[in-house]
Amino acid sequence: MSDAKLAIGIDFGGTSVKVALIQGSTIVAHGEPVPTQQYAGPEALLEALGDRILRLSATASTKGESEPPIGIGLPGLVDSVNGVVHELTNVPGWHEVPLRSILSTRFNRAVILENDANAMAYGEYRYGAAKKGRNVICVTLGTGVGGGLILDGKLYRGSQLAAGEIGHLSIDYRGVPSPFGNFGGLETYVGNQRIIERAESAYLQANKTAPSPLSPRVLAEAANAGCPVAKEIWNEVGIQIGAGLASSVWLLNPDTIVIGGGVAAAGHLVFDPVIHTIRSRTAPVVHQSLAIVPAELGNDAGMIGCAALALEAAR
Amino acid sequence: MSDAKLAIGIDFGGTSVKVALIQGSTIVAHGEPVPTQQYAGPEALLEALGDRILRLSATASTKGESEPPIGIGLPGLVDSVNGVVHELTNVPGWHEVPLRSILSTRFNRAVILENDANAMAYGEYRYGAAKKGRNVICVTLGTGVGGGLILDGKLYRGSQLAAGEIGHLSIDYRGVPSPFGNFGGLETYVGNQRIIERAESAYLQANKTAPSPLSPRVLAEAANAGCPVAKEIWNEVGIQIGAGLASSVWLLNPDTIVIGGGVAAAGHLVFDPVIHTIRSRTAPVVHQSLAIVPAELGNDAGMIGCAALALEAAR
Repeated sequence: MSDAKLAIGIDFGGTSVKVALIQGSTIVAHGEPVPTQQYAGPEALLEALGDRILRLSATASTKGESEPPIGIGLPGLVDSVNGVVHELTNVPGWHEVPLRSILSTRFNRAVILENDANAMAYGEYRYGAAKKGRNVICVTLGTGVGGGLILDGKLYRGSQLAAGEIGHLSIDYRGVPSPFGNFGGLETYVGNQRIIERAESAYLQANKTAPSPLSPRVLAEAANAGCPVAKEIWNEVGIQIGAGLASSVWLLNPDTIVIGGGVAAAGHLVFDPVIHTIRSRTAPVVHQSLAIVPAELGNDAGMIGCAALALEAAR
Repeated sequence: MSDAKLAIGIDFGGTSVKVALIQGSTIVAHGEPVPTQQYAGPEALLEALGDRILRLSATASTKGESEPPIGIGLPGLVDSVNGVVHELTNVPGWHEVPLRSILSTRFNRAVILENDANAMAYGEYRYGAAKKGRNVICVTLGTGVGGGLILDGKLYRGSQLAAGEIGHLSIDYRGVPSPFGNFGGLETYVGNQRIIERAESAYLQANKTAPSPLSPRVLAEAANAGCPVAKEIWNEVGIQIGAGLASSVWLLNPDTIVIGGGVAAAGHLVFDPVIHTIRSRTAPVVHQSLAIVPAELGNDAGMIGCAALALEAAR
């Protein structure tokens, strides 16, 4: 097993690039995060990132491994097979960057790129909430709704490496207009900003003052303090997420659904209606032994998943 | 490759059990169909079926293969791993039948059981409309809406061997009540009988006499003859099927969608809106190289798929 080995996991976010030396699910050492927006384009940013990689490699050396493989999770269109970044979400200047060859040439070791939702799903599958699973749907609820699939024990990427887009799955074919000409896409109902807008209008309709500034966290606090408006929003959000997941369950018959991301921090407020909706809208044969669980690895899931994928590529 | 080898393929239907000696996608010899409902329970039916197996094995002998493996596709809950039939749809008396061990004991050769929708999908994947595919969604539109998935080049069965139930995927989370407490399940909109009911009420509303007796075939003839009521029904049906498939495309990013079954015989009347809906509701990256094609193997797809699976099990 690769568990004893070291790898460098990198989580490329719109705000910062996190980097760490990782062994299994343990963060052995953190590198200093690279503030994404301070660098115009790939070259300068990769220079700063390279500095962290060198330092963490030095740390790895003291543990007997001088060239730990590198795994990078990126938000956006990533060709994990050819190691090319097509475009990054919210990070300008990255267009058709052959990131894998740039890094593997410079550091002379295995490098893998992966879509961030896939990386997170793989992390939870190898070391987190889905480690007992074989067929796993992993959903992240945040600004967007992302997903990754583990099917028959392997990361399933799809024909154009674009599978798992559960945020675009439609829950109402005549519903609200959604990206790419779609209607009723799940994300247009339960994305962060949509939850805030819905809460604002619900408080207005109820003639109540909304907590300000509104956020999913504040809305969860209000619901936990007993506010019926906030409770009802969470209930509706949970039903909609549950409906999208129920359709995914009919299609994929998974053993595990992992739910993470900022919105999932609302805990039972969102999990209760999600679980109830999935169970009440599917056949017993597919839901009786289905685990519906919160993500365990938090913000480190992507780095941990990438590190695991890098070690597998290096074998 | 197994293409040169012989196998017996069996398609267990509610009306008759079809059986044939198969080589690749070629029916070498048909056995006499067994009328399903004339036999109360498994024993008598298996006796009649055994007679066909013996005759086809004798035919195989003349071609130098005396004991061709046996593959059986069945409608209902089938445990393909343990070889047990839990229940059959529309066939009473079949309950927890260890069909694989019964047949492999009697005939002393490899026997496999498979869900009929999976068998059909596998047949189209190996020898039919999806033979160039690697990630395939296969849908059959008939009395029910069934589906089978080929993912990363393998039949994907799911954790309880119940994956691919695209007929239960919801297209409207507040839509019409559907089986298992679900709402908006695709089959409740576009199953055979539902299409007929919708047409009846559409003709009534339009103050027109409906063709009688109504069936999807008659409704297709009416649309092809220019009837606007019939055309509009097919357009709506196509949009609904397309919406369900668009969600499946977001989730699975397949390279091929195969559509078969009686309703698919409506041809362009249903394919045009299906294809338009999928393409207009998904991102270019996932639909640009997506093939959406009619099934090629017709009613033989199940037998052909089972024969191929049996040969693989016998290897």
